[in-house]
Amino acid sequence: VTELDSAALLDKLAAELPDSVLVADPAVVAGFSRDQAALPASGVPLALVRPTETAQVQTVMRFATQHGVPVVARGAGSGLTGGANAVDGCLVLSLVEMNAILDIDTQSMLATVQPGVITADLAAAVAEHGLWYPPDPASYEFSTLGGNVATNAGGLCCVKYGVTRDWVLGLEVVMADGEAVRTGRRTVKGVAGYDLTSLFVGSEGTLGIITEATLRLRPAPGPAATLAAFFPSLVSAGRAVTGIVTSGVPSVLELMDRTTVRAVEEWKRMDLDLDAAALLFACSDLGGDAGRAHVAQMARQCQEAGASLVVETDDPLEARELLAARRLAFPALERLGSVLLDDVGVPVGRIAGFLEEIELVAKERGVLIGTFGHAGDGNMHPTIVFDPDDPSSRARAQAAFEDIARGAVRAGGTITGEHGVGLVKLDYLESEIGSAALGVHALVKRAFDPLGVLNPGKVLRDATTSPGVPHST
Amino acid sequence: VTELDSAALLDKLAAELPDSVLVADPAVVAGFSRDQAALPASGVPLALVRPTETAQVQTVMRFATQHGVPVVARGAGSGLTGGANAVDGCLVLSLVEMNAILDIDTQSMLATVQPGVITADLAAAVAEHGLWYPPDPASYEFSTLGGNVATNAGGLCCVKYGVTRDWVLGLEVVMADGEAVRTGRRTVKGVAGYDLTSLFVGSEGTLGIITEATLRLRPAPGPAATLAAFFPSLVSAGRAVTGIVTSGVPSVLELMDRTTVRAVEEWKRMDLDLDAAALLFACSDLGGDAGRAHVAQMARQCQEAGASLVVETDDPLEARELLAARRLAFPALERLGSVLLDDVGVPVGRIAGFLEEIELVAKERGVLIGTFGHAGDGNMHPTIVFDPDDPSSRARAQAAFEDIARGAVRAGGTITGEHGVGLVKLDYLESEIGSAALGVHALVKRAFDPLGVLNPGKVLRDATTSPGVPHST
Repeated sequence: VTELDSAALLDKLAAELPDSVLVADPAVVAGFSRDQAALPASGVPLALVRPTETAQVQTVMRFATQHGVPVVARGAGSGLTGGANAVDGCLVLSLVEMNAILDIDTQSMLATVQPGVITADLAAAVAEHGLWYPPDPASYEFSTLGGNVATNAGGLCCVKYGVTRDWVLGLEVVMADGEAVRTGRRTVKGVAGYDLTSLFVGSEGTLGIITEATLRLRPAPGPAATLAAFFPSLVSAGRAVTGIVTSGVPSVLELMDRTTVRAVEEWKRMDLDLDAAALLFACSDLGGDAGRAHVAQMARQCQEAGASLVVETDDPLEARELLAARRLAFPALERLGSVLLDDVGVPVGRIAGFLEEIELVAKERGVLIGTFGHAGDGNMHPTIVFDPDDPSSRARAQAAFEDIARGAVRAGGTITGEHGVGLVKLDYLESEIGSAALGVHALVKRAFDPLGVLNPGKVLRDATTSPGVPHST
Repeated sequence: VTELDSAALLDKLAAELPDSVLVADPAVVAGFSRDQAALPASGVPLALVRPTETAQVQTVMRFATQHGVPVVARGAGSGLTGGANAVDGCLVLSLVEMNAILDIDTQSMLATVQPGVITADLAAAVAEHGLWYPPDPASYEFSTLGGNVATNAGGLCCVKYGVTRDWVLGLEVVMADGEAVRTGRRTVKGVAGYDLTSLFVGSEGTLGIITEATLRLRPAPGPAATLAAFFPSLVSAGRAVTGIVTSGVPSVLELMDRTTVRAVEEWKRMDLDLDAAALLFACSDLGGDAGRAHVAQMARQCQEAGASLVVETDDPLEARELLAARRLAFPALERLGSVLLDDVGVPVGRIAGFLEEIELVAKERGVLIGTFGHAGDGNMHPTIVFDPDDPSSRARAQAAFEDIARGAVRAGGTITGEHGVGLVKLDYLESEIGSAALGVHALVKRAFDPLGVLNPGKVLRDATTSPGVPHST
């Protein structure tokens, strides 16, 4: 769109929305044009829209469809894939003002929320009733539930409690043409029609705009018993992981590799074993004797797998201290330079081999890679440290990133376990799902968004006639 | 299609398939033209096809698309909605010959199966490795995994372990045009692209033909501790149910109403309390002391809610005896006449009120209704007993069936918790999901099956130009 067109378009839209909802000031708008991903490009938006109700979202989508203007929805902007990066001439649709918890049904264990509710705020609100909303992405203290739903966010809970999709029963979605649709239900089970809810969950704003979600809750588990175990080799750590998950269901099963352990230790001096190849954390929330017995069993399994040191506790404060190293993993690596935070998954039995492959990539590409993540479901976050001012370092980091994604696919795994495709994994999607499945994706995208106005160029490349493509900034 | 057309079509198809795969004998074919639903109509198929490999399914779908011939896929035919009923001139595609367990990966806890594998056969095969495939529809000893996936089958396990969809990681699907597509992955978590897997699960053969499934397994739980509790009123039973599910997660939570208890007692003399309004069963598979403590807690909750008698056991044989009454619920009601087995769900907090409403329907319509089912997730099976030779009884049964479905929707629930829409719930779907969502269903159906050859007239009425519609037999 030309300058003149932009002004005319803004005038038209301004006539349909309250003043406070439409923001055209480029300085403000620019602050909403990227998510947290370091590398991918972003475009220059036409304007920012901050709707306060579904009807305004419908107005925006009707306008978008009428004028062929792309719409990029976003929550807190804490995504890690460029999925919420603006495209040229788009409306950035920030849903953070729609932040009401509409209902908590304690008897049926349901919460109905607007998309802008902060994940931790819902967790706190339901905790007052002894209930729990499990999904716990690392960003849960600032990310929104709408963003969690749009990306099918994961977290530490997944090994026992699944991902965001497992807790979404129904949605209100505004379609590309502005129609508002309700999907799903308020019952735990239901097979009336197609699972449109699951289709919108994880669709990264490319199929519709999520304006309300009905979430499932469950009783809160008690405090967890916890262990930390150091391993002399990745193979022995992998053996412990498979032993643990094939004989029981831990509530947390997390791993940090040698590089990550060292980064944390150098920063915080926690007396971590710098010679260890891996540090494993496992929790059981079965409660009381059962939880202690479960952790004792996992401790035996770690020792039998070859652990050099295992520490157990059922004291909540001590458990918090044990897990502190895991929480510091990413910030510790971030201190060492700019980082590419990757997100890949392999079948859980293949973890050890895959971690060894990542070490090889680090050597071959001459980059530092610290890997940590959700061992229990095979979802790992290899984090590539690079010097942003050194073009060679940047290129080698990008090459390592690609090596890792391709390696995950070769190992029968996935290019993204919980962060999404966005822009950063666009080139790898076909390698994982194949051209036939990519064709079915395009069928779905065309059916839902025939004009290609919904977050064009994300997840799928040019699935439709895209009215705006990202350019380099 | 005319007689001549049929012969010509059969000749063409015969040229493309092995002799043993294509069956045209009307006497044999007729045996594959219905599922277990009593009332809905079925059509006269052109032929039966029993493929032994995916390539033959592709041949069938290419033929179907080329000649506009409808295809109705089926497994064991144990469905309860007419979803697998033939339409006139269709090819019935029986997938029972594709019954190989292709792989069991014990380390990554995955099984890859063909669609004709009997659910219980997979359960037995993985049990040898200490692993478990949870979904347990009542039909699990004869239903197929392909049918389970196509209908998103449930069972007793759902209150703790979810439905079939929760255990399907990936699929091979043959599309309407014969293309074979792989969806999903072999990792527990993954967000690479849209959740096509969940879209095909529960689509009842209307979007594609499932030719392979990658299923998730988990460690087998230990034996469960169990209780049975009689309640003097539905309200007190409902209070126990909500108390139990909002404070913990039982592995089974089943209910039988007064009519069902009486039908079982009259048949088998088990010393059940004929004055009770409801009988509740609850299990905990936490194991050992934890399981016993959990059942003791649930027993207290039953007593506090007003139970007249609570029996507990952690002996597996005694537990089996306690649960025998629940297993006999449906056959006991079947002894009393022909039955319409319904399948509705409400938010779990509304169970008591909904059961009272069903009692009212029985009175008003002058029919006998026994209700049993999965109290823990609000999924109930009101079973309407009628005299098939009495047109008035039949009509009143059908009216009660409709009253119940509409009542479930009014209570914020679903017309079908686990059986599916098929033909029997076709008229009620819009009342639950609304016209906008029905429109999105039609979008999906048209995108996947533009000619309407896949199980036409099921789930959705006339979503496309249907080449064959069911007629009354």
